[in-house]
Amino acid sequence: MLTVAEALQKVQDCVAALPPRVVPLEQALGCLTAEAIASDIDSPPYDKSMVDGYAIRFADLMDGVAELRFLEEVTAGEVPRIEVVPGTTTRIMTGAPVPAGADAVVMVERSTELPGGAIRLEDQKSKLGQNIVRRAAVMRRGDAVLPAGKFVTPTVVGLLAEVGCADLRVVPRPRVAVLATGNELVEPHNKPGPGQIRNSNGPMLTAQVTRTGAEPVVLGIARDDRESLRTKIAAGLETDLLVLSGGVSAGVLDLVPSVLTELGVREVFHKISMKPGKPLWFGLRESANGRMTPVFGLPGNPVSSLVCFELFVRPAIAQLAGQPLPAEPQYRAKLREPFTHRGDRPTFWPGRRDEWDRGFFGQAVQPLRWQGSGDLRTLVDADCLICFPAGDQAYAAGEEVDVRPFC
Amino acid sequence: MLTVAEALQKVQDCVAALPPRVVPLEQALGCLTAEAIASDIDSPPYDKSMVDGYAIRFADLMDGVAELRFLEEVTAGEVPRIEVVPGTTTRIMTGAPVPAGADAVVMVERSTELPGGAIRLEDQKSKLGQNIVRRAAVMRRGDAVLPAGKFVTPTVVGLLAEVGCADLRVVPRPRVAVLATGNELVEPHNKPGPGQIRNSNGPMLTAQVTRTGAEPVVLGIARDDRESLRTKIAAGLETDLLVLSGGVSAGVLDLVPSVLTELGVREVFHKISMKPGKPLWFGLRESANGRMTPVFGLPGNPVSSLVCFELFVRPAIAQLAGQPLPAEPQYRAKLREPFTHRGDRPTFWPGRRDEWDRGFFGQAVQPLRWQGSGDLRTLVDADCLICFPAGDQAYAAGEEVDVRPFC
Repeated sequence: MLTVAEALQKVQDCVAALPPRVVPLEQALGCLTAEAIASDIDSPPYDKSMVDGYAIRFADLMDGVAELRFLEEVTAGEVPRIEVVPGTTTRIMTGAPVPAGADAVVMVERSTELPGGAIRLEDQKSKLGQNIVRRAAVMRRGDAVLPAGKFVTPTVVGLLAEVGCADLRVVPRPRVAVLATGNELVEPHNKPGPGQIRNSNGPMLTAQVTRTGAEPVVLGIARDDRESLRTKIAAGLETDLLVLSGGVSAGVLDLVPSVLTELGVREVFHKISMKPGKPLWFGLRESANGRMTPVFGLPGNPVSSLVCFELFVRPAIAQLAGQPLPAEPQYRAKLREPFTHRGDRPTFWPGRRDEWDRGFFGQAVQPLRWQGSGDLRTLVDADCLICFPAGDQAYAAGEEVDVRPFC
Repeated sequence: MLTVAEALQKVQDCVAALPPRVVPLEQALGCLTAEAIASDIDSPPYDKSMVDGYAIRFADLMDGVAELRFLEEVTAGEVPRIEVVPGTTTRIMTGAPVPAGADAVVMVERSTELPGGAIRLEDQKSKLGQNIVRRAAVMRRGDAVLPAGKFVTPTVVGLLAEVGCADLRVVPRPRVAVLATGNELVEPHNKPGPGQIRNSNGPMLTAQVTRTGAEPVVLGIARDDRESLRTKIAAGLETDLLVLSGGVSAGVLDLVPSVLTELGVREVFHKISMKPGKPLWFGLRESANGRMTPVFGLPGNPVSSLVCFELFVRPAIAQLAGQPLPAEPQYRAKLREPFTHRGDRPTFWPGRRDEWDRGFFGQAVQPLRWQGSGDLRTLVDADCLICFPAGDQAYAAGEEVDVRPFC
């Protein structure tokens, strides 16, 4: 059986970034740019006033006081029509173009309107060029303002809007299909009958997909028959990644691997040396255009499903988005109480780190009283998984263990 | 003028969590629960098999080997019909109910089907009760499984789905309206004419709202006239919070505060001692039902707008969502190069922390070559704001300064 590290390596080797696509700017947040962006404007596009005030010839204010003839008012969105000549001034709004002839702007707070309409200005500390940003001071038309491979933050959105990039080429958000399988499943709003349980994996995995930034495609429940599985799985293979839950252990009704094979999905691995999550299945489907669609078959037990998603599906989604996750940080923490690990597989056990070391992770961790892979209730209080290596071992309180915080 | 801390305190004093509302489970991710949730089921709902295998009476396997008569097969979703009596076994799938009479399950890997249909089992390490989770081991019908005031993670979604909570009362995601104002603005896909610039604040603020987890409501551009402003602002006041940009400095066309007053928005403060962002306007509108709608008027310069959002709007949105942000962590970092601060207001200057201290923040920070509040281009490379206190001061390389990482 593969180790967790070997399996993760195989996933990483198999998954490539999605082909770039042009999207509207408002859909680009969180994506990676796939082209360099040049500005189509000078910024500012003209000599611009930084304040509301009066545009003047600086020479008129040499002694700090001036009384000037009023020419016109230029609000934002307007252009000045009259040149400022000695002894005159134009009222100008923040962001408006500075009129020809003017070489400084005095803030409106330092002005008085005199009877008759002349303007008195007082500004003892004035300087040539004050309150003016020169045309193209920030960028020049044609300047490359953003390289390819940049993560689109709100600031990037603002910059791209400014330079007229209303559509751009990005690595798109992956579309990730979620399909729960099993005759025993009913949807959460239904009351389970004898032998039935609710579909908790579907909504949980959908929420996990949402949290990665990808777009979930909800396929509902497939029943344990070839026709139902084939239809739903085929729909899932139209997306960028398919996550199934259930149907991958060794039972006679575990048709999932066989239907996957029928639909052209090639198995890369099945089963991993870990607990929970041992039955994990991973494969690839080559589509007509040569794209490889990754397919994960997660175990049906909710915690196994949750943990396999965090360990394997999340990194695969990040790679599709062109944003591979950094190597897993290893946090060490001291156990708050003794713990006995048993079993020949490494175990990921739910734990809770102490409040006082939040933000720095680790240092102290409490193993929770967990009932196993069907027990989501305890998981709600967990904020990390404690990683116990394979083998029977009794840990004392205070011993250091590896800890993996939840995303 | 208010300090940043005083202004933030006023915002916090004015903004309360939204009234709880019932939403479908699939919309609850990221919200705060507003009611305690009890389970409507036992979990597991029956004694459940943890593996694919054979349900037996443990006494039949005392010496580690048994040959048993095959009774029936129970797949997930089915219920056993026949009691397991001495000398018999039922094939059972993972998750299926254990038949009456059985008190252990042997994994399918340890079985052989004999000619004639009998089943041979070998399991030297078997134990009474093995591979069975008892009914209600995880939770009992009526158990409170989640208190009010819990943040809804994917794990919580899974648990709520399991216990039949398909709709629940939460503090809803705030709806936040974004409105840019100004005659000089054109939308990003248009080419600015003379005196015009593109609306970069609208898309940027919308992206910032999205990143907080709130739902943005895009109102586009209002022109600098009463009618246009009144219509758009009235629409914005129907949401949970209104963010305007532009129109709050001191110019004659800055109609925004006056239209806000007309529409019943009471000014709480106008202007803050900070740079950029001094003209920030904040007010409240009491609606018919007694709810207070917060309204922010951000300065029109893009970086001022960005910074005011981070410092004031983000905390307000978090409070509406019932998830107040923790007190601002103060990171200290050593300046990579000398820096001279001038001015009578504290300055938030874009900086970049070093790669090697990422994850722990601070320690070393590079002030970027920033052209002021119109310069978004430089901001794209920033990952923090350096906070310089008011007053002229020359800082040497290696001096420690306060740093505020971007969210």
